[in-house]
Amino acid sequence: MAFTFQINNQVKFNHDQRLLEKATQYKPIIHYHDVVPQSIVELVKDSTKLEGWGTTFIKKASELPNLKLKRDQRVILDFGDHYVGKFSIDLNSAGSPMDSPLFIKFKFAEMPAELKHQSDDYDGWLSKSWIQEEYIHLDVLPTHLELPRRYSFRYVEISIIDTSPKWQAVLTNPILISETSVNSKDVMLPNIKDTELQNIYQVGLKTLEDCMQDVFEDGPKRDRRLWIGDLRLQALADYATFKDVDLVKRCLYLFGAMTAEDGRVPANVFTKPRNLPDDTFLLDYSLFFISILDDFEKFHLDREVLHDLYPIAKKQMNVALNKIDQNGHLVIDDDYPVFIDWSNDFDKDTAGQAVLIYTLRQFIDLAKIMGDQEIDQYSQQLQLLISYSQTVLYDPAQGLFISGPQKEVNIASQVWMVLAHVMDDANNNEVMTNAVAQLFPITGIATPYMYHHVTQALFEAGLSNEAVKLMKQYWGKMISLGADTFWEAFEPDNPNYSPYGSPILNSYCHAWSCTPVYLIQKYLIGEG
Amino acid sequence: MAFTFQINNQVKFNHDQRLLEKATQYKPIIHYHDVVPQSIVELVKDSTKLEGWGTTFIKKASELPNLKLKRDQRVILDFGDHYVGKFSIDLNSAGSPMDSPLFIKFKFAEMPAELKHQSDDYDGWLSKSWIQEEYIHLDVLPTHLELPRRYSFRYVEISIIDTSPKWQAVLTNPILISETSVNSKDVMLPNIKDTELQNIYQVGLKTLEDCMQDVFEDGPKRDRRLWIGDLRLQALADYATFKDVDLVKRCLYLFGAMTAEDGRVPANVFTKPRNLPDDTFLLDYSLFFISILDDFEKFHLDREVLHDLYPIAKKQMNVALNKIDQNGHLVIDDDYPVFIDWSNDFDKDTAGQAVLIYTLRQFIDLAKIMGDQEIDQYSQQLQLLISYSQTVLYDPAQGLFISGPQKEVNIASQVWMVLAHVMDDANNNEVMTNAVAQLFPITGIATPYMYHHVTQALFEAGLSNEAVKLMKQYWGKMISLGADTFWEAFEPDNPNYSPYGSPILNSYCHAWSCTPVYLIQKYLIGEG
Repeated sequence: MAFTFQINNQVKFNHDQRLLEKATQYKPIIHYHDVVPQSIVELVKDSTKLEGWGTTFIKKASELPNLKLKRDQRVILDFGDHYVGKFSIDLNSAGSPMDSPLFIKFKFAEMPAELKHQSDDYDGWLSKSWIQEEYIHLDVLPTHLELPRRYSFRYVEISIIDTSPKWQAVLTNPILISETSVNSKDVMLPNIKDTELQNIYQVGLKTLEDCMQDVFEDGPKRDRRLWIGDLRLQALADYATFKDVDLVKRCLYLFGAMTAEDGRVPANVFTKPRNLPDDTFLLDYSLFFISILDDFEKFHLDREVLHDLYPIAKKQMNVALNKIDQNGHLVIDDDYPVFIDWSNDFDKDTAGQAVLIYTLRQFIDLAKIMGDQEIDQYSQQLQLLISYSQTVLYDPAQGLFISGPQKEVNIASQVWMVLAHVMDDANNNEVMTNAVAQLFPITGIATPYMYHHVTQALFEAGLSNEAVKLMKQYWGKMISLGADTFWEAFEPDNPNYSPYGSPILNSYCHAWSCTPVYLIQKYLIGEG
Repeated sequence: MAFTFQINNQVKFNHDQRLLEKATQYKPIIHYHDVVPQSIVELVKDSTKLEGWGTTFIKKASELPNLKLKRDQRVILDFGDHYVGKFSIDLNSAGSPMDSPLFIKFKFAEMPAELKHQSDDYDGWLSKSWIQEEYIHLDVLPTHLELPRRYSFRYVEISIIDTSPKWQAVLTNPILISETSVNSKDVMLPNIKDTELQNIYQVGLKTLEDCMQDVFEDGPKRDRRLWIGDLRLQALADYATFKDVDLVKRCLYLFGAMTAEDGRVPANVFTKPRNLPDDTFLLDYSLFFISILDDFEKFHLDREVLHDLYPIAKKQMNVALNKIDQNGHLVIDDDYPVFIDWSNDFDKDTAGQAVLIYTLRQFIDLAKIMGDQEIDQYSQQLQLLISYSQTVLYDPAQGLFISGPQKEVNIASQVWMVLAHVMDDANNNEVMTNAVAQLFPITGIATPYMYHHVTQALFEAGLSNEAVKLMKQYWGKMISLGADTFWEAFEPDNPNYSPYGSPILNSYCHAWSCTPVYLIQKYLIGEG
């Protein structure tokens, strides 16, 4: 995720060295593999693909050294799949002696559509610095060029800005050195008969793999950072696949070690140049610290982690419970908003209330293991929150939840109330049936993050067929548009939508979209 | 120089290892000095400066770290004088944590006018790769950035292409690490009373200093290479100032070691990534190998160099003499043209003939020292060439030399015939007096290279006042337009002229323009 924008740079933070040392102790080993391109391709119009651009085979990549490239000539190398890593290549000159430097541009792309957009045309608020391209002068050839930065890409477009009229550039030995802390080949693939779901699983697995680096990154292209909302979903997906508990521990410790002075967990943290919390705070994200800890303990009971981090979890809950009124209504303020989804075009009150209930249930589970003496108070608060939700937020006439002063009926409210199991199973089924009837097809939602929760709510409400249908319509549609990994943003009605105004800023491998591996494992195969 | 364009990449070359080893033996030590900027400046319109752009003081450079720079902001640092070298700077972020890479551009300029031109607007034939700018992404701050390439500049414009809305870039400790193989502080400055000439001398000295690197470069911005035409003038200027004989020896050996299989010396050679001759051949440049060797021996008699290189010098002369007809007329063909000047809008026949006479005189001087048995044949050829020049090319009615089938009267013919002393002193004086009367102000000539020969011809013809006047009008005018070093190209009537269509491709520190130090020393102070 990246869309949220806050500046609170006056906030002071704790830096718990003991917890930071544990975070460091669980730093993963990064695995590197050399990948060679499969082919030289060219862009072609293809109305079935994202933004109408696909690729067509031109030559085998092995023919690259035979090309003698002059001013304004370019080649696109296709590595055949999405990878995260560095790039190196050997360059030489042909013709007369090299009487000028070589000026060369490298542009790295996850999707062909990115190669149709020029960075100069982008003027959105998101930093242009994320555009994956480099301009390089080389005074002397031959040389071996190793670009120092890491990119997220399948394609690299190499453009010769200039040689001189007397010589040409020759490119050999392009190599992508892939980086990840896991290996999808180590995962025992589940037996999925439905080939569409099988493909969705595979692409989800690659998405998760490419986001598992030094931390769980939200997106390896952008922002390459540990966000708590992405982490929660990544951890669930990881338990269903790689089962790498250390990386989850590392990330939990990072958040636990760097709370604000008032105790709140920040929405994201940086690890370079040093461990550093961001000054962005989201109420639901802070609460998800509890959720991640509980999911972790349920997958892999670890008393040390629990003892270290339970106080942090409890603090998040206490901060949130301070915001409920006497009726059991969570009153959300602008300084500590809930995220729920990128869209701010719907009322988030009821969804926020449900997230609090959802995480309070998980907190009580943790409190039980911890033998927390105050557990009854939390149970009482839970009942109060549920009771308010059932009596005030649920509208029996519509069979749906309402939200905010305008009594808005939106998809997020239904989904989160169902996930929080505020009503019984029969009622949940009714709510989601009504939601499908009245709120489908979903509009105005562009994040796989929200679609994940919708799909899971359908499963939880016993509407498996609808859940599978939505998974195919949403994640399956990305694949048919050309996805090798799942995207940060996708709106099926408007497949070319970019929250940033240009696909060159989009992240086409994004952690919060990898969850079909979790959903398929949990609801279609069994919790194995 | 750079304007000449030939492709002869089928030509095979000799590589005389013994001579190349001697060239390596005389490799200079490069001296490095840290230079800090004097001020932060801004461009201002100033009709008295090149292209109408000067600079104005904004802040002391020491205030740079106080600036917090955002998207599209920029600063121009002024180092106070022209230098050749590398650039380093420390970068940090201010504000919220750095949630995106820094994308930053550095543009290095010798003259303020360069900063007004965008590289994207340039579409000339000369390689865009010469434009001195770099685009850099930095993923993590703080960092110490050392740009690996060498630039030629006084100004560096630092543009923040993007940070993010959450943080700003902070720049500290900008350093220019200057490079040259000499030091103008080691030169005992002559006592010049005329302050205008004093300034011209100083700027010429800086020009020469900045071009004296691993070889005598033509221009440190572009093409950074050893050209024989520039070398001849640089060596003369060096004898008048730094008196660095080793660098001249190195360059003579480089040319002597890498002749074409037919024996011709190429017009220029490369030394990186290895010693390599260019495939450009110019008859006058090949002959100047003789001239450089003779000038060197006259400054510093060195039997070893002479013995090593005399055969190469003799070969150049023999190739040229093979091209004279029975009447003593040098017949120049298109495959092996004379350079004389960039302009191809005048007939070069007579100037070429004069260069042959000029260098044949020097060759005979060398042949005498060597005791060459064939010396009489060369003396006979010299008489034949002179006789043809006096009787056919000199037009007594006009008191000027004519050139080519159209009997064209141009400045180059007069100048070179005077330099070659084809006529006696009285006649030379008459020719140059007529030239001043009829051909001044000079038009269509944009090179200090040609202006040098005009000025020297005026001195040789006894017209010192005219010579000094021209020096002030030409080199002095560059200074008044803002030159810190003298330029590759300058046409006084059209001061904004660029042979490449844009000042960003111009070389504003160019070896062949440094010669006032030589002319002032030789003709105004005495050959001391």
